[in-house]
Order: sequence, then C-alpha cells, then structure tokens
Amino acid sequence: MIATGDAVLVINAGSSSIKFELFDAQQVPGALYAGQVEGIGAAPRFSAKDAAGARLADQRWSEGGAPGDHGAALRVIIGWLAGVLAGRRIAAIGHRVVHGGPDLAAPVLVDATVMERLGALASLAPLHQPHNLAGIAAAAEHFPGVPQVACFDTAFHRAHAWEADTYALPPEFYARGIRRYGFHGLSYEYIARSLAQTDPALAAGRVVVAHLGNGASLCAMHDGRSIDSTMGFTALDGVPMGTRSGQIDPGVLLHLMASDGMDTTAVQKLLYGNAGLKGMSGISQDVRDLEASADPRAAAALSHFCWRVRREVGALAAALGGIDALVFTAGIGENAASIRARICAGLGFLGIEVDPALNDANAPDISAPGATTRVLVRATDEEGMIARHVLALLQRSEKA
Amino acid sequence: MIATGDAVLVINAGSSSIKFELFDAQQVPGALYAGQVEGIGAAPRFSAKDAAGARLADQRWSEGGAPGDHGAALRVIIGWLAGVLAGRRIAAIGHRVVHGGPDLAAPVLVDATVMERLGALASLAPLHQPHNLAGIAAAAEHFPGVPQVACFDTAFHRAHAWEADTYALPPEFYARGIRRYGFHGLSYEYIARSLAQTDPALAAGRVVVAHLGNGASLCAMHDGRSIDSTMGFTALDGVPMGTRSGQIDPGVLLHLMASDGMDTTAVQKLLYGNAGLKGMSGISQDVRDLEASADPRAAAALSHFCWRVRREVGALAAALGGIDALVFTAGIGENAASIRARICAGLGFLGIEVDPALNDANAPDISAPGATTRVLVRATDEEGMIARHVLALLQRSEKA
Repeated sequence: MIATGDAVLVINAGSSSIKFELFDAQQVPGALYAGQVEGIGAAPRFSAKDAAGARLADQRWSEGGAPGDHGAALRVIIGWLAGVLAGRRIAAIGHRVVHGGPDLAAPVLVDATVMERLGALASLAPLHQPHNLAGIAAAAEHFPGVPQVACFDTAFHRAHAWEADTYALPPEFYARGIRRYGFHGLSYEYIARSLAQTDPALAAGRVVVAHLGNGASLCAMHDGRSIDSTMGFTALDGVPMGTRSGQIDPGVLLHLMASDGMDTTAVQKLLYGNAGLKGMSGISQDVRDLEASADPRAAAALSHFCWRVRREVGALAAALGGIDALVFTAGIGENAASIRARICAGLGFLGIEVDPALNDANAPDISAPGATTRVLVRATDEEGMIARHVLALLQRSEKA
Repeated sequence: MIATGDAVLVINAGSSSIKFELFDAQQVPGALYAGQVEGIGAAPRFSAKDAAGARLADQRWSEGGAPGDHGAALRVIIGWLAGVLAGRRIAAIGHRVVHGGPDLAAPVLVDATVMERLGALASLAPLHQPHNLAGIAAAAEHFPGVPQVACFDTAFHRAHAWEADTYALPPEFYARGIRRYGFHGLSYEYIARSLAQTDPALAAGRVVVAHLGNGASLCAMHDGRSIDSTMGFTALDGVPMGTRSGQIDPGVLLHLMASDGMDTTAVQKLLYGNAGLKGMSGISQDVRDLEASADPRAAAALSHFCWRVRREVGALAAALGGIDALVFTAGIGENAASIRARICAGLGFLGIEVDPALNDANAPDISAPGATTRVLVRATDEEGMIARHVLALLQRSEKA
C-alpha cells in the first residue's frame, strides 16, 4: 500500500549508463531527483539534480573507487539517495526494459519466472536487454522485498495488426519471434496520454509522433493506440539515428559480407555504431555539432536525416489513412527548430505548415495559422511514464 | 544507317530465360514477334507469337537437343527468327542490362571496354548481371558486326539527389558504390514517355508509378524525371515481391546469422527466393493463385503486400511534396483490380479515390469522378523502350 511520503524509484539501465529518477508516489509525474552514472566501464561520472534542475552532485573518480560495473554504479546511486530520502520508504522500483517479446503488452511485477522469461528474450535485443536485466538484479539485491516492475519499450505496439507486425517472410519466422516489435513505446505512451489531456479531440484522431533523439523512430497512433512504427524487429530499423543506419537494403548487408568479407560482428558494429549522423558526417552524432559545422558532410548528413524522416511521415500517414497532427519529441524533436522546419518543408500536401517564429521558440504548437494539420512540440517523459505504470500496477495488486 | 525493312532485335536475358522481341526499325514500338526460351538449365521451353498474339511456336524437348545454357537458348531463338526474318537485316540488337553502376545514365554501344566495365559491376547484381552479359556475348558471337546496345535498369534513376541516392553510412561506402541505384528504370521511362504523350500536364507534375510485377518497386517522378524509388542498392529493397522480402530490418539479418546460424548464402536464398508472397503464403508467388485460394495465409500475404505498397505511396508522395497521379503498371498493376483497390483504400487523404467499375474493367483512368489525384492503369513495355533507345543511339552515331 502506498503511504504518504512513499517514494518510487525509476531505473533506466543502458549499455554504459544507469539513469534514475526518484518520485514522491503521490506526486507522479514530477521527479524529486534525477541523475545518472554514465561512462560505466570507461570514465564513470555521477551526477544528480533536484526538481528545479539544481545540480546536487557531480562526481568523477581519479583512480580507485570508481564503479566498474552496473552493480557498483547502482551502489553509488543508492548511497547518494540515502542522503536525500529523508525517511521516505521506496515502495517500488520501476525499470525500463527494452524488450517484452511478442506477449508482454503491459508492465509486469518481476519474480524469478519473469526474469527467466525476460532473459530468454536477450537474443532479440543483445545490446540492451542484458543491461536492463542487470539493473533489475542489482536493484532487487539492494532492496530485498521491494516490488520491482518491468516496463517495456515494445509493449505500446503490441496491438498492431498483423500486416504491420510482420516482415514478408514465411510464417515460421513470425512464429519464432521475427516480428516488427517497435520501440520507444514508453515515450509514445506518455505523449498519447499527455495529448489526451491537453488536446482530447486531436488525441482521438490520427497522430504521427516523431521521437527524434539519439535513437529515433516514428509512431502512427489512432485514438491513442499505436498502429505502426518505423522501428521493427530491432532498434536498427527505420530512420537514421545518431550512430545507427536505420533501414538499409538487406542486399547491402549481403554484399558487405559476401563480397567485402565483413563478418556479422563488423557489420553490426558499423550499422549500430558508425553509421547515421556520425557515420555520414564523420564529425559527430549530435545535431548541434553538425549545425555548427561548416563541413559540407555535416550539412549533407542532416539533409539525409530530414529526407528520411519526411518520407516516414508520409508512410505513416498512409498507414493511418490521413494525419491530424504531427508531434515532435525527444532531444532533437524538442529542441532542433531547423530540423523540424526542414522535415515539414514539402509536407504542405498533408496540411502541414510550420510558423517560423513559433518554431524557433520551440512553442507547444508550431502550426502556421490556418494549417489544417497541427504540428506540436512536446517534451517526453519515459521515467514519468514508468512511475505511473508502477503505481497503477501496485494499486491493481492491492485490489486483487 | 537504318534502311527500309531493317529489324531491331531486343534481348532480355534473365537467370533461367531469354526473352526476345523483334521490331521493324521504322515501326517502333509495336513488335513483329515476341517469344522466349524459359526453364534454361531445367526443362526448357521455347514459345513465340506474332504481333496479333497468335502462337507461332511452342516447343519442348523430351530428351537430347534441349538448349542447356544461354548460348544454346539464343541459338534456338536465332534459328526460329531465320524463318520469319524474310530477308530483313538485323540492324542492331538491344539488351536489357540490370546494372549500369553509378555512372552509366544512358544506353551505350557495347565494345570490349564496355563489356569489361559491365563485368566489373557483376558483384553489385550477382544474380542478374552475369546472365545479361552472357546474352550480349552470345548475340555478338552470332551476329558479328551488328551493333549491340546495353540499356540499363538503373539509368533512369541516376539523377537522384544525394539524399535519395545514399544510405546513412560513412562516405567511403557511397564512394565505392553502395548507393540506392533503383531498378525497373526502363519500365518507368516508358511510362513517363507514354504519359507525356497522353497526359502532358500530368506528366509534368508529381507522379508515383507502381511497377507491380513478380519484381515490384515504385518510382516518384517529377516532370518525367525520377526523384526517388523504393528499390535501392539491389532489387531486394522496397516492397515485398513474388518471392523477395523487400525491405527488412537489418537487425533481422544479423539475428538470423548471429543467433540462428544461417550463413550469407542461406539468407540470400531466403530473402530472394522464399520470401514475399510465396514465402508468406506458402502457396504461390502469383497473385491470381492467392486470390483464388481459400487459405487464410493467402489472404494475409496479399494484405501485407497491399499495406506495404500503400505505405510507400505515402513515402514517395512525401519525397515529391505531393502527388498528382498514381500509375499502376506491370503484371499485377495492370491486371489485379482488387489489389489496386486495396492499395488505394485509405489513400483518400491524398485525393485518391478509385471508381469500382472502371477499376474492375482495368480502364486506363480508374479515378472516381471528382477525385483530385488521378489513378491510371498503363501497360508497360520495357522491350519497346529498349528498341527506341537502340534507334536513338544509332541515329546519334550516324550524326557523329
């Protein structure tokens, strides 16, 4: 049972970082504290801030004592939290887990059976799933008896029609899990909920959400439910990203391996780590760096990115049978006005027109007056979404 | 110089077939005779018909004497042609060649240097290019001194902007030829020319052409020039086809190889030969068979095909900044009314609406009255396009 002052901890364990947010269970969303250990395994750094954004911690380790793995990194976080909990009880811990497989369409309370089930999905997301599970294991060890809740990036997309859930392969591939799972589901779900509160009529319609961060995908939503998404079996599909290629002719992979002698590992490294904005530009994966650069490769990389995202807006409008709103979110989507403008240029046939001044101001609604399709800018909040899920699941557990 | 009665022979050599058409050089397009040897290497069959469609030959070989390779198959064709040429001189031979590489943006007269250059492109299209070149070599041997002209499926797309010509990979990959070549160029060029004659205003606008045959792709054209296409580096990219997967998450290939132990050859065989309509249905690659089947997998395969093509119409409309016409062509595009109807359903937001009766009749213009975007059905004619190219090149050679 949730009592006054209880806290919910949210943990997002990635390949080289653990992010956390601490919530007052009765004031979700709106984190009390947020922070992270980044650079795990290399040059770790711990930082934390409060709800107002004031930096409360910023720690590096010169030599010795640095957290060397995810377990150690979590101990650093927990040690710091002990000083700010001020008597609050951690009632539950929510975890972002990239893959819920074909069946997990909602958050679950983690027990040994669930951990085993999630572990079996690791081969579907070898670069992410093991880190997510390591985060859960470490949290369970530090907080015995505290409910651990797994929230999946794939869950929001699990009601896709078969047409949007399959590749054009024999049925046995689908049966053994080669499906278009889609990702960034916690972000899309947050946007869907937020939109239902601020623009209920729009939220009931056909909305394309462009989650453009270091990872990037787009989601087609109708009445708040996901219909289609650009990411598929893995987070490599769809539009180009900071360091990922996005969609690429399967014939390119066959060529690189059969003619150029690259092996699977080398191709994976290329497509995940040295492609996208970073690979095209040879400069940076960060849109801000590329916009500041005079190198023509920087401009070219951004052009290709905008071109590909624009194409996918058209594709998802077709999947929806039309579009009532386009929502930009995540790092690039929320902040890169010129990228938004360039994506939207040429989408006038969809009723999309951006007001330059509103766009430059990152206004919540950047549509030009009279445009028939709304273009919105929304901050996403995956951790807030996880905290909500944790509370909802605790409440359902109590009633049951 | 072209004289009265001169003939142009067009040869389209595929992996297991050689198709031909014979034209009166002064009456292009409009072939005098057309035919093929199919089943080369297995159970060959030669057939031919005249301009009115009357079958003039249909030959199988019980045992012995069957053409065992492309050279022998061409000898069968030439032997038959000798009986119908009636004194006509073969002034030139045009060949369909799948790949012209990054530079060949127009048909070329083949000499030893060109053959070497085209041979060097074989690794870009290992399943097609060698057969095309074998056809040229065999024709040159049989008709010494007769000009051989290579016409490329990639040529029509060579003016794409860099954004549409690249994948999101480091520049060195683009430099060494990993580009989005696009294919079916001879078909698209024929449609563009044909449209310019029948609907010049429309041809000057933004047109998406859906070439839906056993191979399938879509092309975005503006003012008759290709802007973008769904096929890329290989003919495996884009929408699903008879036996090909089309676009598929690169992560699926990595998974099949790293986790499932498939090698490059097995993946290639799967994606080229056992995917698409045939793979999904487990029944047939032929839309007619699937429409006639009561098996739910047949209906599902067609649904996925229509879904994917519909998505690409939206993507290409975005690439063009709008759409004035959608043109269906090739086997499925010209004949499968229900497929056209299902692709267009849900595209009303693009001004697309199909008239059911006109559609069922395969009418040249199947748009509903009042629809703002025209939907057309056009027969394509790649061989006729090649014959035109051959004549144009001969005429330029004469002037030079």
